[in-house]
Amino acid sequence: MEQQKIDEFNHQHIKDHQRKFDFVAEDVNKLDDVLQKLQAFNIAIPSWALGTGGTRFGRFSGGGEPRNLEEKIADVGMIHALNRSSNSISLHIPWDIPKNANEIKALASGYGLHFDAVNSNTFQDQPGELSYKFGSLHHTDKAVRDQAIQHNIEVIKYGVELGSNALSVWLSDGSNFPGQLNFRKAFQNTLDSLQQIYAALPDDWKVWIEYKPFEPNFYSTTIADWGQSHLLASKLGKKALTLVDLGHHLPNTNIEQIVSLLLMEQKLAGFHFNDSKYGDDDLTVGSINPYQLFLIFNELVEGMDARGLNHATGIGWMIDASHNVKDPIEDLIQSVEAIKIAYAQALLVDTKALVDAQQNNDVAKAQEILQAAYRTDVRPLIAEARLRAGGALDPIGLYRSGGVRDSLIKQRGAKTVATGL
Amino acid sequence: MEQQKIDEFNHQHIKDHQRKFDFVAEDVNKLDDVLQKLQAFNIAIPSWALGTGGTRFGRFSGGGEPRNLEEKIADVGMIHALNRSSNSISLHIPWDIPKNANEIKALASGYGLHFDAVNSNTFQDQPGELSYKFGSLHHTDKAVRDQAIQHNIEVIKYGVELGSNALSVWLSDGSNFPGQLNFRKAFQNTLDSLQQIYAALPDDWKVWIEYKPFEPNFYSTTIADWGQSHLLASKLGKKALTLVDLGHHLPNTNIEQIVSLLLMEQKLAGFHFNDSKYGDDDLTVGSINPYQLFLIFNELVEGMDARGLNHATGIGWMIDASHNVKDPIEDLIQSVEAIKIAYAQALLVDTKALVDAQQNNDVAKAQEILQAAYRTDVRPLIAEARLRAGGALDPIGLYRSGGVRDSLIKQRGAKTVATGL
Amino acid sequence: MEQQKIDEFNHQHIKDHQRKFDFVAEDVNKLDDVLQKLQAFNIAIPSWALGTGGTRFGRFSGGGEPRNLEEKIADVGMIHALNRSSNSISLHIPWDIPKNANEIKALASGYGLHFDAVNSNTFQDQPGELSYKFGSLHHTDKAVRDQAIQHNIEVIKYGVELGSNALSVWLSDGSNFPGQLNFRKAFQNTLDSLQQIYAALPDDWKVWIEYKPFEPNFYSTTIADWGQSHLLASKLGKKALTLVDLGHHLPNTNIEQIVSLLLMEQKLAGFHFNDSKYGDDDLTVGSINPYQLFLIFNELVEGMDARGLNHATGIGWMIDASHNVKDPIEDLIQSVEAIKIAYAQALLVDTKALVDAQQNNDVAKAQEILQAAYRTDVRPLIAEARLRAGGALDPIGLYRSGGVRDSLIKQRGAKTVATGL
Amino acid sequence: MEQQKIDEFNHQHIKDHQRKFDFVAEDVNKLDDVLQKLQAFNIAIPSWALGTGGTRFGRFSGGGEPRNLEEKIADVGMIHALNRSSNSISLHIPWDIPKNANEIKALASGYGLHFDAVNSNTFQDQPGELSYKFGSLHHTDKAVRDQAIQHNIEVIKYGVELGSNALSVWLSDGSNFPGQLNFRKAFQNTLDSLQQIYAALPDDWKVWIEYKPFEPNFYSTTIADWGQSHLLASKLGKKALTLVDLGHHLPNTNIEQIVSLLLMEQKLAGFHFNDSKYGDDDLTVGSINPYQLFLIFNELVEGMDARGLNHATGIGWMIDASHNVKDPIEDLIQSVEAIKIAYAQALLVDTKALVDAQQNNDVAKAQEILQAAYRTDVRPLIAEARLRAGGALDPIGLYRSGGVRDSLIKQRGAKTVATGL
Repeated sequence: MEQQKIDEFNHQHIKDHQRKFDFVAEDVNKLDDVLQKLQAFNIAIPSWALGTGGTRFGRFSGGGEPRNLEEKIADVGMIHALNRSSNSISLHIPWDIPKNANEIKALASGYGLHFDAVNSNTFQDQPGELSYKFGSLHHTDKAVRDQAIQHNIEVIKYGVELGSNALSVWLSDGSNFPGQLNFRKAFQNTLDSLQQIYAALPDDWKVWIEYKPFEPNFYSTTIADWGQSHLLASKLGKKALTLVDLGHHLPNTNIEQIVSLLLMEQKLAGFHFNDSKYGDDDLTVGSINPYQLFLIFNELVEGMDARGLNHATGIGWMIDASHNVKDPIEDLIQSVEAIKIAYAQALLVDTKALVDAQQNNDVAKAQEILQAAYRTDVRPLIAEARLRAGGALDPIGLYRSGGVRDSLIKQRGAKTVATGL
Repeated sequence: MEQQKIDEFNHQHIKDHQRKFDFVAEDVNKLDDVLQKLQAFNIAIPSWALGTGGTRFGRFSGGGEPRNLEEKIADVGMIHALNRSSNSISLHIPWDIPKNANEIKALASGYGLHFDAVNSNTFQDQPGELSYKFGSLHHTDKAVRDQAIQHNIEVIKYGVELGSNALSVWLSDGSNFPGQLNFRKAFQNTLDSLQQIYAALPDDWKVWIEYKPFEPNFYSTTIADWGQSHLLASKLGKKALTLVDLGHHLPNTNIEQIVSLLLMEQKLAGFHFNDSKYGDDDLTVGSINPYQLFLIFNELVEGMDARGLNHATGIGWMIDASHNVKDPIEDLIQSVEAIKIAYAQALLVDTKALVDAQQNNDVAKAQEILQAAYRTDVRPLIAEARLRAGGALDPIGLYRSGGVRDSLIKQRGAKTVATGL
Repeated sequence: MEQQKIDEFNHQHIKDHQRKFDFVAEDVNKLDDVLQKLQAFNIAIPSWALGTGGTRFGRFSGGGEPRNLEEKIADVGMIHALNRSSNSISLHIPWDIPKNANEIKALASGYGLHFDAVNSNTFQDQPGELSYKFGSLHHTDKAVRDQAIQHNIEVIKYGVELGSNALSVWLSDGSNFPGQLNFRKAFQNTLDSLQQIYAALPDDWKVWIEYKPFEPNFYSTTIADWGQSHLLASKLGKKALTLVDLGHHLPNTNIEQIVSLLLMEQKLAGFHFNDSKYGDDDLTVGSINPYQLFLIFNELVEGMDARGLNHATGIGWMIDASHNVKDPIEDLIQSVEAIKIAYAQALLVDTKALVDAQQNNDVAKAQEILQAAYRTDVRPLIAEARLRAGGALDPIGLYRSGGVRDSLIKQRGAKTVATGL
Repeated sequence: MEQQKIDEFNHQHIKDHQRKFDFVAEDVNKLDDVLQKLQAFNIAIPSWALGTGGTRFGRFSGGGEPRNLEEKIADVGMIHALNRSSNSISLHIPWDIPKNANEIKALASGYGLHFDAVNSNTFQDQPGELSYKFGSLHHTDKAVRDQAIQHNIEVIKYGVELGSNALSVWLSDGSNFPGQLNFRKAFQNTLDSLQQIYAALPDDWKVWIEYKPFEPNFYSTTIADWGQSHLLASKLGKKALTLVDLGHHLPNTNIEQIVSLLLMEQKLAGFHFNDSKYGDDDLTVGSINPYQLFLIFNELVEGMDARGLNHATGIGWMIDASHNVKDPIEDLIQSVEAIKIAYAQALLVDTKALVDAQQNNDVAKAQEILQAAYRTDVRPLIAEARLRAGGALDPIGLYRSGGVRDSLIKQRGAKTVATGL
């Protein structure tokens, strides 16, 4: 996506944008501060998100999918060119092993991208290796645990080469039936394995421990909820933190409260953003319950400000969704937009008035304050921040009108299948 | 609330409003049509909603609660004066039995109010009567069923006198333990009872059958879901319809789909509006998941248009929430506002483009269309419609600045308890 | 599994069995009737259940899996030889297309097996055909709907040749995001498609319509709950019935009540048995909540008796689970055992006393009656019925001690993959 | 309940019992050990459980309810005389304040009863005190927190006088709407309040911290899940532990895993037993999912053995249910029976074989082992243990045949209302 195309597109739409921006800007306190924060705020794109996701019934490819890591980086580069909010990529090993780290870093850098957390994979078997059929870090067999530990250490090494500084660990370790597992031993094996991985972390690295209550066909998972992740992270030490994936909760869980408490405890690693209607649905961020997303950002802004954390860099931000019926690039643009909308709305909350209402238990007032921010149409603010950063006023609009997907299909073919899931 | 106060208040805020309205109006197609629909749209207030709700731990009265039906009507009258969207009241018998129907009608009429559906109560025991401990219309004992049937017939009579034209039936009939109930017999007893009530309906009346999956301490309810309510309504006949209470669903239920299908089947009676986080929480409408509310209104607008129904009168609209920690009047104003926001957003959906996107399975586009409408700040449209109807630009603002609650406390006392729940 | 091996095994365990059987038999009313009913009760095995199930993370094959339909029939034959309760097989087209129906029928017959309902598949794409990416019977494109209809009609033809008499339809038709689908049109397209399939049913055939609230990554399904399935079945006619899969419900659904009402309405097709902890987990029947299974059978026995239906043949019984970490044959034997235990317990309920307790609202007594039956160790009754039918006293015991899986691995190989899922 | 009546009753039923006991005993390893453990195992009865519970729709009294603490103690005494498994009573302050501790202790002692944990109440307002409308230990107003702290300290004093050694704290502190509460401050206020209460604990006392995800009408609770309770307990110190109430979990929570981990962390205080179908339903223990209860006891036995804890005294056991449609005494007897059945089944698990199966990932075998224990009819073992302890072979049978409730009604009246809930 050349800058010239973006500029032309913006030029066509600037008048309408200016009218909208001027209108909403009039009521925004500390407008420059808000715009600067919006500009600074980036969300990492995982390398596995550029292809169509697999479903229980097969994969319905959309065409033009990236065939290798280089093309995935190119796709993220284009997203970032359009929205100026996706300046990093999160690799999943072994789905995307860089052959030459320096070349890959240079390639990414050319798009303005760097490398976010690296993700290990001990939930899929590799040829010639021991099977993870019955788990990895929690396995009853020390040989399997050792293999999984070594894999994580290897992932750290790839990450160091790429300039990453965090290892993100998600396990599918669990059980399918009552009696299959001794919960206590499984937890202790997991802790022991993580301690060995922790010992291999460079000084400035973190390990992010994800939790998830269930997988299809499961009776238990060994890191099921924030409490179990937090217990592990506490025992491991300061470099270990809890990662929140929005889709990894039982029905009705109050996620915003968990976020607030993890921030309080200095144990919030960051987010895997998505949305869900039923289970772990990995839907586009903000497509099902955007108000919940806003409430989470309201806690984030409040809690990070209380601890003096930089919003953009204080914790990790990443999308983790599955794109089965939409063009993955459009889906990712929609997700980033939804995140920035929620963030912008949270920045508009009248914090002082809210603290007063809370102190006085003026519940109706507290709701008015939150909803006044939420009901504001903040899209022009985000567009303006994007414009100032060199992005497109309307990323999806330009992506579509520019016929990008068609070009990709011509270039890569209609039946490519992205590596990884 | 005198009109003069409202006019003064509006005069103070008109300039700011005009700026906002002009901005949003510029992008609205068929602006007059939208405004007329918003003006015509009213939501009934139940007579039991004006007092503080009871909780498991007692009632925490807020002061100035209405002490009788007359004062409840006055409260609804004031809400309607402020928002011009609450022109009817829904009575609950025996909590609010009008002593003299004509006088009550005249009183209500003075406030511009009429009487919506009447609600029977066979879930609380009355002195000297048979107990509903084990249910009412489904009871194993014919004498109890007969008593409950007679009560419903009596409620219809009250309704006829008041000019109402629908009976709303909600049962707490169910069981607490497996084995307690024969589900089939309970269903058939319920059907038989409803048939007798149905026979007593005047020609132009409807009976609305509410469903609910559980009460605290329950193992089953005899009208648990929309399917069971619909089965009863189908067997009863054309005057019987299914009432949807937003809080009466199992976790994750897709309510908007149910609404669409009931409309298709010409069996949607209307709504009891509220919101909920966990169970049947009876929270302020739109306080937890406003996007779901919008999606429901999107189905309503689409489905009612397809059947040629008038949005304002085609089905029944009522709030049914519990107000435990907020001033009930403020809570109701917030609920009405949330409903009208969702309705206005649904009116802004680009229907033609949506049909195209659906036909072409352009999922990303369909989402863009819905969210474009949802993300619009429609508050100025609603304020304008309210202004044109003689209401206040900011009902809660005026209610607070006018010190209405303080006046009510002076007039009625600080420790009054509203009749009914 | 030769009869001689079974007899030898039984001979070794007969003494212990006899002691246990005599003990429990002493308290069973109408012992012969119970034993005859247990003997007559068979549960169909789906042809896709003999191989290890796939998971999100790959397939972890257990070795010796059947490589074709003939070997699948052999596996079911062995299960039936062991437990004498699995005398039919349910084919899934196109996973298991019989090349020569007569030969397959003869093969099955040799094992004492016949063919249960046939299952269509319009959720996976076939080479050279239109894609089901956006659904099948509900599709916006008539050409896709027509293809799916033709497939179902073809499945009926296979079924006729095999002596089956029911078509089981499960759709993954739904949507992933709000706005993607017009619910009403999707429902009407589905109805229209089913009507065409219905018209192709032979006189003595049924069509079974399954419902399911969600798939991973879904926002809606077009046949989401029993109410939607029942609405379709009612509009289609007498040959259309609702199929209940135990795993296809939202959290906390009272399934036993649904079963009771569908029986009452003469619209219960039958069951897909499994168990689940979280979502649609497809776990071994009775492995998570065996009391719920008992409560369902309690409704079945009561409701079928009320309608004079033969328990064994009045509705359809099939297992539908996924076997990822267990030997599929062991898993199926465990499932059949759990079903028969629940059925036997339901047969032991003191019906007359229960009716009295219900009539008198003696809730504690009703619970005592149900739990008295449930707490009875009925395993010796089932073993006795199995013994009388020529099966093994302890099917899994014999399967393991006989080294059956090892033989299958020798014969078929360690890395075979069953056709189908 | 005189011992003579019990003995007569047992004499009538001894022959049948002996036959059943002999049968089941034959297969039980370490029979004496099992029987001794069953005899030693007692479950506390809360003082508020002897009366009919209130519902949203009123209270449906069953007659003969205890009118004061003395009569409640008498009721527990009778339950204990019948089942010899309820040798303690748990007081709730201020519902049941003993006027004279020594007299009350003597009275209880006469029935063989002592006093279990004492329960504070900061969820209901008391005349002349500050209101808990907006919470207690988490309140924004220090004066309210101080009042609640003082109440807890007072409850400890009552407990000391009665010989209790634990304070059980359950809070309804939470919020009804987003924005109402600052989660972090609410948590820190709660921690600070608990620290002051903790400081007032005698050396040999514990404080038990209960969690609960929601109340009707709630958006959040300040101690929502085990993780939050555990975080508080960890910060407080060794005397603080987490209490598990079975009904206080989101849908589908794996409670047995939580129990296992809390035991591992030496932070499991004990249990409030009940069962639930939907929300926090407070139903009779084992009435909805008895297998889950067994799985929990399986973890308890395994985990307590691993730590060398005495099953009967190592942690706290109490029933916490609501009795709305059953005679409370019958309900409690049913609950105790269900608990002892689950415990007995857990004692029968072949631990050594299970460890082997787990180590070898033999999942089918592990399930066989658990279900072999669960499917055993252990009622004769419990009856035998009861018999040896002087209780009745069939407590409910004797309670009913002895016409106990009728006597209580004659003595106390038909419309008494127990103090407390």
